[in-house]
Amino acid sequence: MKPVVVRNIERADSNAIGTFAALGTSTVHEALGRSGLMKPYMRPIWSGAQIAGPAVTVLAQPGDNWMLHVAIEQCQAGDVVVVGCTADNTDGMFGELLATSMRARGVKGLVIDAGCRDVMALKDMGFPVWSRAISSKGTVKSTLGAVNVPVVCAGVNVEPGDAVVADDDGVVVVPKKLAVETAQKAQKRHDDEDGKRRRLAAGELGLDMYNMREALQKAGLRYVDRPEDV
Amino acid sequence: MKPVVVRNIERADSNAIGTFAALGTSTVHEALGRSGLMKPYMRPIWSGAQIAGPAVTVLAQPGDNWMLHVAIEQCQAGDVVVVGCTADNTDGMFGELLATSMRARGVKGLVIDAGCRDVMALKDMGFPVWSRAISSKGTVKSTLGAVNVPVVCAGVNVEPGDAVVADDDGVVVVPKKLAVETAQKAQKRHDDEDGKRRRLAAGELGLDMYNMREALQKAGLRYVDRPEDV
Amino acid sequence: MKPVVVRNIERADSNAIGTFAALGTSTVHEALGRSGLMKPYMRPIWSGAQIAGPAVTVLAQPGDNWMLHVAIEQCQAGDVVVVGCTADNTDGMFGELLATSMRARGVKGLVIDAGCRDVMALKDMGFPVWSRAISSKGTVKSTLGAVNVPVVCAGVNVEPGDAVVADDDGVVVVPKKLAVETAQKAQKRHDDEDGKRRRLAAGELGLDMYNMREALQKAGLRYVDRPEDV
Amino acid sequence: MKPVVVRNIERADSNAIGTFAALGTSTVHEALGRSGLMKPYMRPIWSGAQIAGPAVTVLAQPGDNWMLHVAIEQCQAGDVVVVGCTADNTDGMFGELLATSMRARGVKGLVIDAGCRDVMALKDMGFPVWSRAISSKGTVKSTLGAVNVPVVCAGVNVEPGDAVVADDDGVVVVPKKLAVETAQKAQKRHDDEDGKRRRLAAGELGLDMYNMREALQKAGLRYVDRPEDV
Amino acid sequence: MKPVVVRNIERADSNAIGTFAALGTSTVHEALGRSGLMKPYMRPIWSGAQIAGPAVTVLAQPGDNWMLHVAIEQCQAGDVVVVGCTADNTDGMFGELLATSMRARGVKGLVIDAGCRDVMALKDMGFPVWSRAISSKGTVKSTLGAVNVPVVCAGVNVEPGDAVVADDDGVVVVPKKLAVETAQKAQKRHDDEDGKRRRLAAGELGLDMYNMREALQKAGLRYVDRPEDV
Amino acid sequence: MKPVVVRNIERADSNAIGTFAALGTSTVHEALGRSGLMKPYMRPIWSGAQIAGPAVTVLAQPGDNWMLHVAIEQCQAGDVVVVGCTADNTDGMFGELLATSMRARGVKGLVIDAGCRDVMALKDMGFPVWSRAISSKGTVKSTLGAVNVPVVCAGVNVEPGDAVVADDDGVVVVPKKLAVETAQKAQKRHDDEDGKRRRLAAGELGLDMYNMREALQKAGLRYVDRPEDV
Repeated sequence: MKPVVVRNIERADSNAIGTFAALGTSTVHEALGRSGLMKPYMRPIWSGAQIAGPAVTVLAQPGDNWMLHVAIEQCQAGDVVVVGCTADNTDGMFGELLATSMRARGVKGLVIDAGCRDVMALKDMGFPVWSRAISSKGTVKSTLGAVNVPVVCAGVNVEPGDAVVADDDGVVVVPKKLAVETAQKAQKRHDDEDGKRRRLAAGELGLDMYNMREALQKAGLRYVDRPEDV
Repeated sequence: MKPVVVRNIERADSNAIGTFAALGTSTVHEALGRSGLMKPYMRPIWSGAQIAGPAVTVLAQPGDNWMLHVAIEQCQAGDVVVVGCTADNTDGMFGELLATSMRARGVKGLVIDAGCRDVMALKDMGFPVWSRAISSKGTVKSTLGAVNVPVVCAGVNVEPGDAVVADDDGVVVVPKKLAVETAQKAQKRHDDEDGKRRRLAAGELGLDMYNMREALQKAGLRYVDRPEDV
Repeated sequence: MKPVVVRNIERADSNAIGTFAALGTSTVHEALGRSGLMKPYMRPIWSGAQIAGPAVTVLAQPGDNWMLHVAIEQCQAGDVVVVGCTADNTDGMFGELLATSMRARGVKGLVIDAGCRDVMALKDMGFPVWSRAISSKGTVKSTLGAVNVPVVCAGVNVEPGDAVVADDDGVVVVPKKLAVETAQKAQKRHDDEDGKRRRLAAGELGLDMYNMREALQKAGLRYVDRPEDV
Repeated sequence: MKPVVVRNIERADSNAIGTFAALGTSTVHEALGRSGLMKPYMRPIWSGAQIAGPAVTVLAQPGDNWMLHVAIEQCQAGDVVVVGCTADNTDGMFGELLATSMRARGVKGLVIDAGCRDVMALKDMGFPVWSRAISSKGTVKSTLGAVNVPVVCAGVNVEPGDAVVADDDGVVVVPKKLAVETAQKAQKRHDDEDGKRRRLAAGELGLDMYNMREALQKAGLRYVDRPEDV
Repeated sequence: MKPVVVRNIERADSNAIGTFAALGTSTVHEALGRSGLMKPYMRPIWSGAQIAGPAVTVLAQPGDNWMLHVAIEQCQAGDVVVVGCTADNTDGMFGELLATSMRARGVKGLVIDAGCRDVMALKDMGFPVWSRAISSKGTVKSTLGAVNVPVVCAGVNVEPGDAVVADDDGVVVVPKKLAVETAQKAQKRHDDEDGKRRRLAAGELGLDMYNMREALQKAGLRYVDRPEDV
Repeated sequence: MKPVVVRNIERADSNAIGTFAALGTSTVHEALGRSGLMKPYMRPIWSGAQIAGPAVTVLAQPGDNWMLHVAIEQCQAGDVVVVGCTADNTDGMFGELLATSMRARGVKGLVIDAGCRDVMALKDMGFPVWSRAISSKGTVKSTLGAVNVPVVCAGVNVEPGDAVVADDDGVVVVPKKLAVETAQKAQKRHDDEDGKRRRLAAGELGLDMYNMREALQKAGLRYVDRPEDV
């Protein structure tokens, strides 16, 4: 690991990001071919936020939040800060003061594969954070990491500028080269679902709407009338 | 495992189920002799719901929600769908569209030993789900499972038609043959607690109300005045 | 382990406790030299409470809540009950009736390295609990433990009378001898943060406010303009 | 849960059990349609044992091994004792003395969804145990459970007399009604593998031996020459 | 936490420690009233060692092994080094070089609530380690901890000089004031077991040897002949 | 995710790989600046192997080992197969037959972020595997993944051809561009350790050998003679 800060990064298409923010993680994840999803241990510290933005990435040492201070200077309005860690760690690397500073830069939210603290204050501020833990554990500022290099965060490789989408279902990362194409697929998927929702609400079965009965029969599904016929 | 759907199942007594829904899991679990409780990793995706209903059971393959579509056709109003999985899995097998379809059939809620997604939408709909994880991870529809066969869900063996009780404390399963008897015991337990609550609120000690002092002394509990007397 | 109840304990300074309750865990944990924090698996059963009080300690056997009944008699108004367990356990050792009794004694809240149940009722009562799990699992009253002896709870050694601070960020324990000194440091830390918050909100960078640039350069941090320059 | 001991149980076919012991868990699990496998947290306390036998089942309370003493009287030579627990627990419920007693009855081994201790002695005795944990934690003998009732052990429902197969890969349970049929399928599967092993060892690819190429192409797999062609 | 090294500590009685080393953790843990046991995630990095010795305690920061170097100077022949950590951590804080240095001082082994590395070399040296993880993750030497202060290690409070007993079953800590008394009880327990082992090996049932039948009947255990009689 | 197989990949320098195989993970991980280490849940299925080789990467669906068959055709003698998975999974995707086929191609070993089975046979063959679990759970061959694309495996991003080093301490990945430089640093580190080992074995303290005393004093470490002086 080289201790370096990359000043200029290419950011994912802003229209695509707008679409992602409107549609949310589950739709985007499907549109991306069911990939790019962080592990489900990443949870929002308060519920109800749904955001998207290009990633400013941070590689941090466990228990050390020095690089978060460094990263803020590299942020633009609309960015989402994504923090990976060189070892599993739950310390509270992020809290109210850093959030205040990030908000002043226009940062939309934080995704951190470590802990977060001051959660009551962050909820009051309306600053959204997805983390693997909530913990008061304080951190030091003594070992370098890096900013805007590729990082693995909760099982996903994130390149600087990739589109990060986060809501109550989790966090999805869309490689910036695939952002526009994925946004189109996601929008189409979303539009198709409206009709399906109405038909299902009206009582139509998915078995019929999706024409599943024949495939089920071919696969060998058998219907019996009573438990003793199994 | 045989890929089969059982069409007709015997459901637990509906009056008993009404009692369970009114009293909640902790009281029912005690009335059942402190058994039938799913592991505590099963959590509601939103808090405040308290339901009971006969189980329509689903045995699903990890990452495959085909059988959930099949199961809906077998549901009646008031049922609770219980999903066991052939291997540990956190994928988001259930979401808004399936919930819309289940609601159209009158299903009261879902208990799934896997993941759930669209949690914001499900909360808005007021459709309650207990799951082991929240995850956007999409699923395929390619391998058969079974519907209305016995399944192990979060450590409990569930027979089709068993009474499922779920609230913020967790999920309890009452075998259908024991439903009526358990409902009576649960109601009695509940009624007894009102008096106890009033006495405790008035400052009476449990030590006295439950006559514990003698048993504690016999078991060898010793009182000392200061730490250095231990 | 000796089955004993210590009747008289020295309690941490009440003014210090008032300060802790006002400032919360993260500030107090820092003031204590970043120590005393319970493991982050200890979570509040409902969010928004922030309390502090001297510890009445309970050493309980897994699945047995007998000693909680014994402990209540030793509580004074303002105390926080802290329960350690002789083995990892998630059973629901604590619920509405015990909370009713504790509230009648003026107990401020409970910290338990095991499970809790009746969480809807406890939230309605406004009685705060920090626990490692939520579970309906009922408990017996058959094996002795101890009250007001040192206990390890979620990784922290707690002496009777130590100051316990708990909020949405977790639980911190301040040894009673260090309470006054820690309260002063915590207050100072809190006061210093107000100025910092304003400066950060105005857009000043932490890099400048904390004078980090030189230290970063000395440590070897390098800035490059483009990813290909890394 | 009723505190009961069932004296006479039907045991799975002994020839089938002989086949299972010879072939091991992975082959049997496949022959059973990829079901019946306990969760992978169940591990042998020493490696190299491979056993099969009809289950004598025990439902135990956490931290209480009273029912194991009761169960031994119900064992016949060749049996495997399977212990489920009413709550997650890692206490060392089983050790050298119980193993000595079981060995005197001809019991082949133990499968316990809790802890085991005296592992050095058990290894010296050559008595195999599969458990979720190794722990010195001692247990009491104070609360009843049951013997030879259905129990859930590590995610699998086990009926008394079912065939239990265990080796370094894990533990599989074959319902006694399916034992004979499953043994035949397992033997066939095993016999088929010999030829495959020889062909693969000779360098033939699975792609060709299993005729996978066409299916892969139909499914859309694309081959490219260089990374930049992806 | 104060960064301090205590030079002179009182060590547990050496005869008692000899007894503990001979009898192992499970017997000692029972003799201590079933307490003092570390959590079962603490495992030996190689099997077959059984040691006891007075504790030299280390409080370390996660990912920082500076204090281990400091601690070695405080060790005497026969000591066991016990390392607690201020936050959950699995980094490889200890390896071959530190073991070489400890062996030169006569240290018997290490118990660390963090990670260990160079496990092949340590096995070859015959230096025993109990740890929560095995990991190559390197550590820094930048933040102070303490030596010979009380530390919580894997759920147990350890005072400097306490007797530490470790084998394949886990790790037990005996407070130094209780060492002599506990050694006597442990020896007695061990001697009693010889006779029991012989009787059980000869086929006598624990039910009879321990006179359990009457207590079981009083507690309500019922024997039935067939499953349908339950 | 695109279902693609890349036929030609650049492999890390073979001399560097020879050095890595000789030195093992802990030395290589340090030489790489303490990075590149997979999470410690990746464990060898049998102990004593130490290998290195260029990565042939596989992206697999959970519970589906189709792509492993595809990958073998792309392997050369000396390669190490690295399998990442699109969701957390412990199914036994790899066993004796696949190992037989890989061995026929000269593959040195397998690193899989999922389960492995047939562990007794694999140990007998001497085929080394590092996995997150051991499980008999069988898998299907129905959904495409990819071969020789970048994959995240146990928290590390692995590019095809990167050098993979694995032993009893874990698994480290060296980016192929850094292989030669890292091998030189690792060799130097190894050579330096010989002298240190001898000095430590002779009784010299690390405190003196590394000149730590002054830095410790500057950092504020205080030595006291007795516990009461703390």
